[in-house]
Amino acid sequence: MYDVALIGTGAAGVSAALTLKALNKNFIWFGSRSLSSKISSAEKIRNYPGLPFISGGEMREVFLRQVDEMDIEITPKNVTGLYQMDGHYGILCNKEMFEAKTVILCTGVESVKPIPGELEFVGRGVSYCATCDGFLYKNKTIAVECTSKELEHEIEYLASLAAKVWLMPMYKDVEISLENVEIIKEKPLEIRGGQKAEKLVFSDREIEVDGVFMLKQAITPSVLLNGLDTADGHIVVDRSCASNLKGCYAAGDCTGRPYQYAKAVGEGNIAAHSAAEYLANGK
Amino acid sequence: MYDVALIGTGAAGVSAALTLKALNKNFIWFGSRSLSSKISSAEKIRNYPGLPFISGGEMREVFLRQVDEMDIEITPKNVTGLYQMDGHYGILCNKEMFEAKTVILCTGVESVKPIPGELEFVGRGVSYCATCDGFLYKNKTIAVECTSKELEHEIEYLASLAAKVWLMPMYKDVEISLENVEIIKEKPLEIRGGQKAEKLVFSDREIEVDGVFMLKQAITPSVLLNGLDTADGHIVVDRSCASNLKGCYAAGDCTGRPYQYAKAVGEGNIAAHSAAEYLANGK
Repeated sequence: MYDVALIGTGAAGVSAALTLKALNKNFIWFGSRSLSSKISSAEKIRNYPGLPFISGGEMREVFLRQVDEMDIEITPKNVTGLYQMDGHYGILCNKEMFEAKTVILCTGVESVKPIPGELEFVGRGVSYCATCDGFLYKNKTIAVECTSKELEHEIEYLASLAAKVWLMPMYKDVEISLENVEIIKEKPLEIRGGQKAEKLVFSDREIEVDGVFMLKQAITPSVLLNGLDTADGHIVVDRSCASNLKGCYAAGDCTGRPYQYAKAVGEGNIAAHSAAEYLANGK
Repeated sequence: MYDVALIGTGAAGVSAALTLKALNKNFIWFGSRSLSSKISSAEKIRNYPGLPFISGGEMREVFLRQVDEMDIEITPKNVTGLYQMDGHYGILCNKEMFEAKTVILCTGVESVKPIPGELEFVGRGVSYCATCDGFLYKNKTIAVECTSKELEHEIEYLASLAAKVWLMPMYKDVEISLENVEIIKEKPLEIRGGQKAEKLVFSDREIEVDGVFMLKQAITPSVLLNGLDTADGHIVVDRSCASNLKGCYAAGDCTGRPYQYAKAVGEGNIAAHSAAEYLANGK
């Protein structure tokens, strides 16, 4: 069992990881060596103390070098579910389960807001996890919205099962080219259905589907972790970055504005200290 | 009238200054180009994202270069008093008054805690400001506790007025050598008196004085600004770094633990944004 499961490799996650390492905690860090699409794509950052007039790409390099120098490992898995267990947390990455005494959520802010019907039909035709639920749609018709090129392998996996995939990519340079995958360039407006999701509504048409996959790098926090207090799409935390759930902390854009590197880095540091303190107090 | 008076040049102050500049605010920044004794004296900082394994001295250099590159001025004055005026703040630096719509306090945490009697006798024999109150002690006997070499000129000023100065320096390499200044290497335990401060108590003796000067770079926040809410010596702020007083924000070590660069930098950023938002809302 890990002391801490740290989720997310944006600025807050990097800061939390460096501090957890400095505090000698046993932690697992889920994310990607590309760190975050937000960091990589930033043009010029002027007000981050210590790195004047740096581009996002350069900041990513600097952060990554520091992570490597401190011998911190990034586990390149997508967290698809989080569960409160008996005094600790279960972290599900597709079908693989990890356990930790505390979690720190640095999941960023969703660039893609949930569409009407999405949250309503989660578990009833709407899924965030290809590996978990793909087999339910063998030889069926599904729609897949995908926010990141890094998740293309999940589209391929779904296409290997489903009879037909309507793909709505929210990124550039789509490299999927499969017979049963048809690309729709428009964003769906709504998911409708009765007992379960049945169709996807666009501005000019509707598509009948058996299921809808929303492949995102950051799942809506309240969907990811049942019972987590959120407001306006942000995780509600106090000054110590503690959420309403014991042993669960959050840092960075996912806790609200300002969406700034300095703020994220500060909260990552605070969350790491708070988790360490919680662990020291025997939970 | 300035938009913002920013007080303190530690990591929180630097972060707030960079962000206020980026936000194009009209601000005055009180502090010193040595930034803070805490930054300068830190050995190795491992967990500040972007500056791996940096010494305090190097961090100071990097911060200062960024401040200069962004053409931000540091006003090298010691703030000796802060006053709530009609919807804005008065900032007193010895006898010079500045005005600002908002203030951001980045005053650090006191390395020297108030001793018993100190707060009780403020204005009745205990003073934090040589230039303000020195003339009251012409030809008298005073005690001076001083926490920083940078304030030695104030000791010299006091010695030019008083008949006798008992000096308790809390720093190394004291360069004061004056006939009427006698150095005590011990820290006083208590200030006692009746209507006003009358004597200083040490472990093995007592000294009769007419007044006591406590020359510190960071004045106890609640003494500096009347009505400011504090707890355990820290300024009480909410998640937006707002204090209980309208238009007054605080960031960094002065708001509490963890005493970390990343945390200070994060709060400096938040406080700058909060002040800007307050100004935008027409106060």
